Amino acid sequence: MEVGYDIPAEVGMAEGDVQTPALIIDLDAFDHNLQVMRGIVAASGLTLRAHAKTHKSVDVALAQIARGGASGICCQKVSEAEAMVRGGVRDVMVSNQVRGAAKVARLAHLAGLAKISVCVDDMDSIAELSTACHGVGTQLSVLVEIEVGQQRCGVLPHDAARLAAAIVAAPNLRFGGLQAYNGSAQHQVDESVRAAMMGNVTAAVREALAGLLGLGIDCPTVAGAGSGSYPAEASSGLYTELQCGSYIFMDADYRARGGPGVEPFRHALFVLSGVMSTAVPNRATCDAGLKSMSMESGVPAIWNRPDVRYDQPSDEHGGLSDPLNTLRVGDRLRLVPGHCDPTCNLHDWYVGVRDGRVECLWPVTARGKLW
Amino acid sequence: MEVGYDIPAEVGMAEGDVQTPALIIDLDAFDHNLQVMRGIVAASGLTLRAHAKTHKSVDVALAQIARGGASGICCQKVSEAEAMVRGGVRDVMVSNQVRGAAKVARLAHLAGLAKISVCVDDMDSIAELSTACHGVGTQLSVLVEIEVGQQRCGVLPHDAARLAAAIVAAPNLRFGGLQAYNGSAQHQVDESVRAAMMGNVTAAVREALAGLLGLGIDCPTVAGAGSGSYPAEASSGLYTELQCGSYIFMDADYRARGGPGVEPFRHALFVLSGVMSTAVPNRATCDAGLKSMSMESGVPAIWNRPDVRYDQPSDEHGGLSDPLNTLRVGDRLRLVPGHCDPTCNLHDWYVGVRDGRVECLWPVTARGKLW
Repeated sequence: MEVGYDIPAEVGMAEGDVQTPALIIDLDAFDHNLQVMRGIVAASGLTLRAHAKTHKSVDVALAQIARGGASGICCQKVSEAEAMVRGGVRDVMVSNQVRGAAKVARLAHLAGLAKISVCVDDMDSIAELSTACHGVGTQLSVLVEIEVGQQRCGVLPHDAARLAAAIVAAPNLRFGGLQAYNGSAQHQVDESVRAAMMGNVTAAVREALAGLLGLGIDCPTVAGAGSGSYPAEASSGLYTELQCGSYIFMDADYRARGGPGVEPFRHALFVLSGVMSTAVPNRATCDAGLKSMSMESGVPAIWNRPDVRYDQPSDEHGGLSDPLNTLRVGDRLRLVPGHCDPTCNLHDWYVGVRDGRVECLWPVTARGKLW
Repeated sequence: MEVGYDIPAEVGMAEGDVQTPALIIDLDAFDHNLQVMRGIVAASGLTLRAHAKTHKSVDVALAQIARGGASGICCQKVSEAEAMVRGGVRDVMVSNQVRGAAKVARLAHLAGLAKISVCVDDMDSIAELSTACHGVGTQLSVLVEIEVGQQRCGVLPHDAARLAAAIVAAPNLRFGGLQAYNGSAQHQVDESVRAAMMGNVTAAVREALAGLLGLGIDCPTVAGAGSGSYPAEASSGLYTELQCGSYIFMDADYRARGGPGVEPFRHALFVLSGVMSTAVPNRATCDAGLKSMSMESGVPAIWNRPDVRYDQPSDEHGGLSDPLNTLRVGDRLRLVPGHCDPTCNLHDWYVGVRDGRVECLWPVTARGKLW
């Protein structure tokens, strides 16, 4: 592989020689985040199923399991799950609906290679999954997703027991429990609004659990929670499994929001960018734009440089205000992405750095795995 | 390659069997756009150097040259240019500054394999390029980029002649002309504001040309113009080369803006998405979110479905309002991306469709080529 064309760095290289823009992991901060979450999970008595949609990396997933207290991972797509199983992850939940014959067949096959679970919010989906698993002789664990405020997927709580009963009755399926995740609560800035949203989430879970109890169906797992809300789920007395993802890297949006759930974690993910032009007075241009960072949650913050501001994104450029004209061509900036998940999905490689040197190169294994 | 894991389709497959989400090209609309631009360029008497930053595809670039009236292409990054030259494109301009020893060395090497040009906005950059080309015995064509309103890169117009003289004097470099591109004018909605911006652009070009004339330096090329402004540059009497990119696909943002420059072109690019949940009344969820489409220019429009609206993007989901409850799980929607360039950069494959069948699969050759 050619440095600069296929890959931005090689192991042992100084951080200053990494080709920019590049996605870098500060390995000290990463190790800190692994350890902190391991402590939080141990104290809670719950299970951590770390969300791999954040990083899409087998190496990160295996570190979360080996050193970060995770018992398995979640994915959002079948192809992500396939990438993780191929990489050696033995317990993968697709925390999403999987529909259509081709995707369902792949999931049924995967269930022969690792412990696989998936969500449903529709009776037809249960029949599809059962038929496919029966055809290849595999077993799937199936959770019922309930609607808890995001208005995205999930059945109404009172309907969960009906689907659970169908799963229990379906050949080659096991009822895995309830999936109750409210993504829109994660980034809610107003703490009292967020608390109210989480109150609705736990009320919905209680209603669904009561329905299951009414039919005499045991609920082995209540799963959900992201990095923006997990203290609420963890203290609810209802959840058994947390699905945090962003904690491993953090991002500018969560940091700006603050709160006790995110404060223990450090920024571990940066886009390293080089200054490429200072021709315009009081401004500079760096080489990282919309193709290196997702900006729907805002432009990146600049690490340890309060004097300069990223204020004009374009496809391949970042426009910087530099009122003191301190930036020079070739200067390196660590940009803190607004939203880490879709930013990681833009890159092929993580460059792991420690003490100014490249320590590892990890592929973004499931980058572009959309299906 | 495995359909569904590595690639979303195979040639001959019905469009209805393509794994979603997938980036599809409507080949009839694509051919139409090639032909229309060929006619516009022929009528203008100018050269078209189609911008490959839009599509990052060797196949699209070769079609633009063979059938679309383009004499060559532009790129924004050295690694994009490398991908295009490896694919057989013989004339590539990096319409951007290239700084730093490693990138400059790669560009100097590439100039031995194809006709390569690049932009500068700094005296040190000229010295770097000259030294690198001299070292490997290659020749580069170098354009001076002038600042024409975007406040991004480029010297002030009165300073262009000084840099041009340095290029003329530098071993292994040829003075290629002026690069004068205002990206911020492209998406300007107000036609009179856009006209005023373009007036500033042409005034800057005139000033730079006068400076060159004063030093007796011949200016072989004045290059610039995007799909949002090219009628202004083409009729200015100053420009010799257009650099349109988005015309080949179009996007929702340009279409909403309208105007005589974009109206002749058809939507050729879509993200094909499948409905995966209709559990919430009056809503549906499709399988394409922020990892399938860049949304900093807004959410996608839905092709030929005025009754439904994409209104809630998340990483892997698209929330749809469906007031008439007409959508069913498995339904396919053609989404029109808000901004085509960063959307193409999210995908590994273009699925070319005609008359409901897959006719070709083109790799997004330079996807993720950031360096």
